[in-house]
Amino acid sequence: MRLPRSRTALIAGAAVLTIGGSVAVAGRHIDRSKSAELTSKIDPRVPRNVIVLIGDGMGDSELTLARYYAKGAAGRLNMDRLPFRGSSIHYVLSPGPGPKYAPNYAGDSAPTATAWSTGKRTIDGRLSQGPSEAPNVPGSNRGYTTFMEIAHRQGKATGNVSTAELTDATPAGPSAHISQRGCHGPEDARRTCPTETKEAGGLGSIAEQQVDQGFDVYLGGGRARFAQSVREGSGTTVLDVARRKGYRQQPATARELSKVRSLRGGKVLGLFHDSNMTTEYATLNATPEGAGSPDTQCVTTNRPADEPSLADLTRKAITLLQDNRKGFVLQVEGASIDKRNHAGDVCGQIGETIALDDALGVALAFQRKNPDTLIVVTADHSHTSQIINANQTPAPGASYATLKTVDGAPIRVVYGTAAHGTSFAHTGAQVPVWASGPRAAEIQGTIDQTDIFGVISSTRTGGHDHDRRPRPKGR
Amino acid sequence: MRLPRSRTALIAGAAVLTIGGSVAVAGRHIDRSKSAELTSKIDPRVPRNVIVLIGDGMGDSELTLARYYAKGAAGRLNMDRLPFRGSSIHYVLSPGPGPKYAPNYAGDSAPTATAWSTGKRTIDGRLSQGPSEAPNVPGSNRGYTTFMEIAHRQGKATGNVSTAELTDATPAGPSAHISQRGCHGPEDARRTCPTETKEAGGLGSIAEQQVDQGFDVYLGGGRARFAQSVREGSGTTVLDVARRKGYRQQPATARELSKVRSLRGGKVLGLFHDSNMTTEYATLNATPEGAGSPDTQCVTTNRPADEPSLADLTRKAITLLQDNRKGFVLQVEGASIDKRNHAGDVCGQIGETIALDDALGVALAFQRKNPDTLIVVTADHSHTSQIINANQTPAPGASYATLKTVDGAPIRVVYGTAAHGTSFAHTGAQVPVWASGPRAAEIQGTIDQTDIFGVISSTRTGGHDHDRRPRPKGR
Repeated sequence: MRLPRSRTALIAGAAVLTIGGSVAVAGRHIDRSKSAELTSKIDPRVPRNVIVLIGDGMGDSELTLARYYAKGAAGRLNMDRLPFRGSSIHYVLSPGPGPKYAPNYAGDSAPTATAWSTGKRTIDGRLSQGPSEAPNVPGSNRGYTTFMEIAHRQGKATGNVSTAELTDATPAGPSAHISQRGCHGPEDARRTCPTETKEAGGLGSIAEQQVDQGFDVYLGGGRARFAQSVREGSGTTVLDVARRKGYRQQPATARELSKVRSLRGGKVLGLFHDSNMTTEYATLNATPEGAGSPDTQCVTTNRPADEPSLADLTRKAITLLQDNRKGFVLQVEGASIDKRNHAGDVCGQIGETIALDDALGVALAFQRKNPDTLIVVTADHSHTSQIINANQTPAPGASYATLKTVDGAPIRVVYGTAAHGTSFAHTGAQVPVWASGPRAAEIQGTIDQTDIFGVISSTRTGGHDHDRRPRPKGR
Repeated sequence: MRLPRSRTALIAGAAVLTIGGSVAVAGRHIDRSKSAELTSKIDPRVPRNVIVLIGDGMGDSELTLARYYAKGAAGRLNMDRLPFRGSSIHYVLSPGPGPKYAPNYAGDSAPTATAWSTGKRTIDGRLSQGPSEAPNVPGSNRGYTTFMEIAHRQGKATGNVSTAELTDATPAGPSAHISQRGCHGPEDARRTCPTETKEAGGLGSIAEQQVDQGFDVYLGGGRARFAQSVREGSGTTVLDVARRKGYRQQPATARELSKVRSLRGGKVLGLFHDSNMTTEYATLNATPEGAGSPDTQCVTTNRPADEPSLADLTRKAITLLQDNRKGFVLQVEGASIDKRNHAGDVCGQIGETIALDDALGVALAFQRKNPDTLIVVTADHSHTSQIINANQTPAPGASYATLKTVDGAPIRVVYGTAAHGTSFAHTGAQVPVWASGPRAAEIQGTIDQTDIFGVISSTRTGGHDHDRRPRPKGR
């Protein structure tokens, strides 16, 4: 039986002191508050369940902006409550110019997703496949193994959730191997990756590969990609193939999702939008003249009621996956933190950051009852938005916007990495990574993005370390 | 006697497991590497010595840039080796418009220095004094108490090192109380803070207050401020007053500094430049047309040999301060990370970031032999510079530069928060904070900048917890 956390902390803390030979001062100088709490949270055991939450483009700047706007200067996010915090270095590889496979210090979401999904680096646009690998033709290297594939082979339940198209780079990272991220569905692949289609003997488009993987739960956007015909002129879509392969539950609305109760009715391919899912907050785009004002607040009711929130998707995914007695692995992406940042949509990106944080709240609630669950939260790369003084005028040509935060104070945000009307750029600053649960301490400090793979891919398939009851043999 | 660290870790780790009731799995699944190491580094005791290193304007972006440029994608800084890492939220207060003392999400270096120096917030421009306090006239509130004042009253040795003028905001934070940061020396104060001069019955300019504080060691720039006459038309300077007050050692060159061997010769006021000290790397300013190229490297030999480096200053300060048997408190600022970022000087800011990291190396070397030393490294606020893809063209009007890193790969840096030729702006993103040593775990996770005060101001004045020999009574 486990002791209550506080007592564990006390004993562990005292042990360190006794070993240190400083018993004499033990009673005098110890501030147990945070040191002891942290000690109590270091758990080197291997987790049973893993939940990875990705804020796409959620650098420290994006995160601070969302916190200030929605929670206030003294407010805190769920992320802020996680005990272990590191920074992840997320350069990718460059095919040139310059030295081959030299670092590219500000890459796209395909190689960054590859980094934590597989523990290896690749070039821009490429997904879980080496920079020098031939396209997926028979006999060729089929790419890097992903943490989700490992979990699936171990018999664990597997889930992949995103507010983007499910075929977008981040959800594709752990579930597909392809040379170009644009090969979403079979029609896209015939145009963009003709040598990697199934007709050409390849693994097929991302959507087809995702169905072939047989992961248990996919929830997100991108219905139009899965509605593409699998062969030129054929009426058969990826959705049809998916149904034949066991994805018998294909909810398309929040109401339909609510009727999905377990995996006994079949695997789940839930697609709630033809493209990317609708953002929580309505768009407010920064402009070179300055959008918004010290009295502007975001419209927070943008998402239609029949589209589930990211927290809803996360809750449902966990509910479905937790029945597997070997545990589960789940990836959840808040995709439009990045997409709205590309557009300079300050309200859009804030709302999506908060939505990811709400999804984390769902994961944390599950973890409280299932402490053999590791939660890792991170970003793939940082992004353009910067908070500046509300009286500061940015560079001419840079876009900016001003909002009123929940504190009632003005906050100004500048987007300077690209011309207005084009796509604002990813940035190279190291990104936050947090964790709680078994092995969470492994992500502490400065880490490489590829290190995350090692932490999230090492899971137990046996019983519950944290169970109080004796385990039946062979479980 | 202390056990070797590795064994401490092992036992502490095992204790947690035994308490958790999972002895059965203890041998099977434990990866002791990082969890155990972190456990071994949690030390809740109160430190004897405290070294606070401030990278002015050193956000995660600035830090990543310096690491990539000088150490490479796979390289690591000394900062990266510190076991505990948090993020510090550094908003300040606003006098308006809008609600009075509402948050200002991107403040200047005076209120941010106030935050960690005193544990309290104030408004832009103000140093260790409340936002509503009257100027320093007799009987008025003389401001917030600083961690350095506390240490000094405890009889500890105290030191203040900066590459800026010593009267600049960051070194002034723990050593002065004044309503406007521009009141560097008495002549400045007569112009800018006439009600706060000594003639008016106030505490006087920052330089005068620093001398009055009686801290043991000041090393940095700003000689011209201390050379100002203390009264209109008087030939007496702050340097003269300082000498009378015990600052009998006033080195002005690296050679003179090398001759300062201990505080027995008097307190030390070392001023190595009339203004801010020379940067390590020569200036390369970003421009809207794009400065530099994929073949451009920074000139790293800019500092004249007779100006000591920040590492030199730090080494000397520690050498002088460590003789105090009650311990010491030292603040070290790398000031021109910020100043060169304001100018869009990409090489300048990189060199200063590396210089601060080298100073940290000196502090860490001292800590290895004196483990009852807490080291905290942080920034006051984040700044403008952002890493973008080397092929990305920023907003027209934004300034940028391209360099070749130590990896041989191009890195592009954009400055978009202000027009070229003006001052690029501070940004609001949360900033890194690291620590090692006793109480270091207290800064873990998301913290408020004012929380740092509590960690660095709580020190022991007695003997060495970490000493192996029995302590004489009354020490």
